[in-house]
Amino acid sequence: MPLKVAQRGRIPPFIVMEVMQAAADRVAAGGDVIHLEVGQPSTGAPRKVVEAAHAALDAHVLGYTLPFGSARLRQRIADHYRDLYGVAVPVERIAVTVGSSGAFLLAFLAAFDPGDRVGIAAPGYSCYRQILTAVGVEPVSIPVGPATGSKLTVEALAGIETLDGLIVASPSNPTGGVLTDVELAALIEWCRARGARLVSDEIYHGITYGVAAGTAANAPDVITINSFSKYFSMTGWRLGWMVVPPDLVRGIEVLAQNLFISPPSLSQVACVAAFDCAEELDGHVARYARNRDILLDELPRAGFDRLAPAEGAFYIYADVSRYTNDSGAFCKRILAETGVACTPGIDFDPAEGHRFMRLAYPRSEAEVAEAARRLKAWKK
Amino acid sequence: MPLKVAQRGRIPPFIVMEVMQAAADRVAAGGDVIHLEVGQPSTGAPRKVVEAAHAALDAHVLGYTLPFGSARLRQRIADHYRDLYGVAVPVERIAVTVGSSGAFLLAFLAAFDPGDRVGIAAPGYSCYRQILTAVGVEPVSIPVGPATGSKLTVEALAGIETLDGLIVASPSNPTGGVLTDVELAALIEWCRARGARLVSDEIYHGITYGVAAGTAANAPDVITINSFSKYFSMTGWRLGWMVVPPDLVRGIEVLAQNLFISPPSLSQVACVAAFDCAEELDGHVARYARNRDILLDELPRAGFDRLAPAEGAFYIYADVSRYTNDSGAFCKRILAETGVACTPGIDFDPAEGHRFMRLAYPRSEAEVAEAARRLKAWKK
Repeated sequence: MPLKVAQRGRIPPFIVMEVMQAAADRVAAGGDVIHLEVGQPSTGAPRKVVEAAHAALDAHVLGYTLPFGSARLRQRIADHYRDLYGVAVPVERIAVTVGSSGAFLLAFLAAFDPGDRVGIAAPGYSCYRQILTAVGVEPVSIPVGPATGSKLTVEALAGIETLDGLIVASPSNPTGGVLTDVELAALIEWCRARGARLVSDEIYHGITYGVAAGTAANAPDVITINSFSKYFSMTGWRLGWMVVPPDLVRGIEVLAQNLFISPPSLSQVACVAAFDCAEELDGHVARYARNRDILLDELPRAGFDRLAPAEGAFYIYADVSRYTNDSGAFCKRILAETGVACTPGIDFDPAEGHRFMRLAYPRSEAEVAEAARRLKAWKK
Repeated sequence: MPLKVAQRGRIPPFIVMEVMQAAADRVAAGGDVIHLEVGQPSTGAPRKVVEAAHAALDAHVLGYTLPFGSARLRQRIADHYRDLYGVAVPVERIAVTVGSSGAFLLAFLAAFDPGDRVGIAAPGYSCYRQILTAVGVEPVSIPVGPATGSKLTVEALAGIETLDGLIVASPSNPTGGVLTDVELAALIEWCRARGARLVSDEIYHGITYGVAAGTAANAPDVITINSFSKYFSMTGWRLGWMVVPPDLVRGIEVLAQNLFISPPSLSQVACVAAFDCAEELDGHVARYARNRDILLDELPRAGFDRLAPAEGAFYIYADVSRYTNDSGAFCKRILAETGVACTPGIDFDPAEGHRFMRLAYPRSEAEVAEAARRLKAWKK
C-alpha cells in the first residue's frame, strides 16, 4: 500500500539554500565561488563570545534550560533594550529561541489559526511565506516597490482591508529598507485599528547606513523578533529571541516546551558576552558599509543600475529585467560563468522576483571587490 | 480591538518542564532538590566531544550548514548504522536535526496532513501528542498496559482498524519497554498492510539492560529518529538525526530549510567525535544500571511496588493508584516534603496518568540512593 506524503511538505524550497548547494557542488568540482548568495557574515562569533564558550565547555554540563532560555541571558537581553533603545521590557516577556527561525514558527503557531490571513512584503524573506503555509496560514503578498521606498509602510497597505496579522522587517531583506520610529508607529496603529497582530522582524538591527531603525519592543501587543545571527555574526549558533506580548506568553511557552524543549545551551551561555562586543561588531558593520559603497559604485558600471535603497542589512536588490525575465536561470549563468553566487529574486517575491536578483555583501572587502570586477567583465 | 490568540497555542504544557520550574523555584528559595523529574543525564558531553568543540571554536567560522547538516557528520551517522546494526543507510537519507524535537516536527509536517489520525502509545512521550495537535493532526491514544508488557506491540493495536501513521518508541519513555527486532518487524508489517506511516523513535538506543532493541533503519518506508541527547549525554547541544524514507527526503529538506535553516554548527562539528566515546558512554549506562537496581530494590520498600518493566531508557513508571488519584498533586507533595522531583503520569497519559508517576534515574548513584532513602522515610 503506498504511503502518504503530506501536501504541506510540498512548499517551495528556500531557494538561497539551493544556490548554496549549487555553489558547494561547484567547489567540490574544483571551481571557485564568491559567496554573495547567503546572508551570513564571513566572520565568526566575536572574540569574547568564543572565550566565553571555551570557559563554558569546561565549566558547565550544558543540559536543557527552561524553554524560554537561561535567566541570565534573558536579563541581558532586557538590559540591551534598556541600554540601546531606552525601552523597558519585562524579562518575563523575553523568550530565547532556536534562531529567529524558531521564533517565527512559535509566533505564527501561537498567534494565528489555520485559514488566517497574514500580510507579508513582496519582496520579503521567503521563509515567512513558507512557514505560514506549512502551518496552514494564508500569506497575503503586499507589493513593496519604489513608490514606498521598497518598504512595507502604511502607504503600501492602501487597498488592504483586513488581515489577521502582518509581518514587517526593518531593515528589510532583500531591499535594505529601514522603517523609522514614526513609520513603524503608523504600522502599529494600522494593525491596532484592524485587530491584526504585528510581527516586527528586527534581526538586522545594528546594521544600518546613516539611518536609524525603530523598534517595536515598546509596543506590548507586537511580537518583536531578533537574532544573534546578523549583527552579532553568529549564524551557526542558532540563537534568537523574541519579545512576547503578555497574552501570548503562556501559549508560546507551552509550544516552545513541546516543539524545542530549549535552545542550544552553549550558545546561551556564550551569547551573554555578545552584548559586550560593540567595538568588534561595529567594525564588521564598517566593513559592510565599505562593501556597500563598492557595490553601489561598481554595479551600475556593470549595467546593474536599478537598485533598491539598501539603507540597512547587507543586501542589494537589483532589478535585472533589462537582461532577463528568468532570474533563476540568470543567477545560474552568473555562477557558472563568473563563480559569483547570487540569489534570484524568486526567493523573495513569487510574482515579480523573476526580474530581480539579490547580492549579499557581508564578506571581505577583497571578495566583494573581486565579485564586482567579475560582474563588470562578464557584462562587457 | 482585542488581538487574537490562536487556539492551537492552547495545547497542554510539557508537564516535566513545569516540574523543572517548580524545582528551580524551590532551589531559588534555598531548598534542595534531587532531580528525578527530567530525562537528562547528570553528566556532560563525552571528553572527546568537548575537546573537538574546543578545537572547532578556534578553527571554524561556524556559519550555517546545509539544512540536512554537515556531510562529515551525516557520513559518520551512516557509518554508525553499518558498524552497530549492520544496516546500510544511504547518506542522502540522513538528516541532522535540531534535537529529536526538530526531527519530530519535520517528520509530522512532511508525512501527515491536517485531520490525519496518528497512533501514539499511552503512556508515551507527551510531546508527540502536543506537536501533532499543534500541526492539526489527531493523536489516537493506544493504551499500553501490563498485558503487552507496557509496550506498543501489534497486540496493543488489536481493535484499531486504520491509522495514517503510528509512532513507536523503543526503549520507551516512560515505561522502559523495549521492542525486539521481531516485535518491531511485526509493527512495520502492520503499518504496511494499512498504508500507515511508521515513525520509530530510537532516541534511547544504547541504554538497555539485558535486552537488545531493534532498529527500523533497515525499513526504507519508516522514519527512524535518534538523538545525541540520551546515550551520548548531550541534551543541551540540541542535535538529533533521522533516517528519511526516499519519498519524504525532498519534502523534509524543504521544510528544514524554511523552518530551521540548519542545526547548530558547533554541535555538528563536535558530535562527529561522539561515536568514538563508547567506553565513557557505556560507563554512564553501567551507572544507570546500578541506579535502576537501587530503585527496583528500594521503591517496593517505600511502598511503590507496581512498576513497569524498565528494560531500557532511564525511567521507572510507577502505578501509585493505591496512594492517590491525582498524581500531579502527589508529585507536588513529594517535592515539597522530600525535595525529590518526580513527574506525574498525566504528562504521559491524559486518560490514566493521574494514577502513575515517573522517576528518571540518569543521575549519580549517591543522588538516586538518597532519593530512595527519602521516599522510604516519607512513606513510613
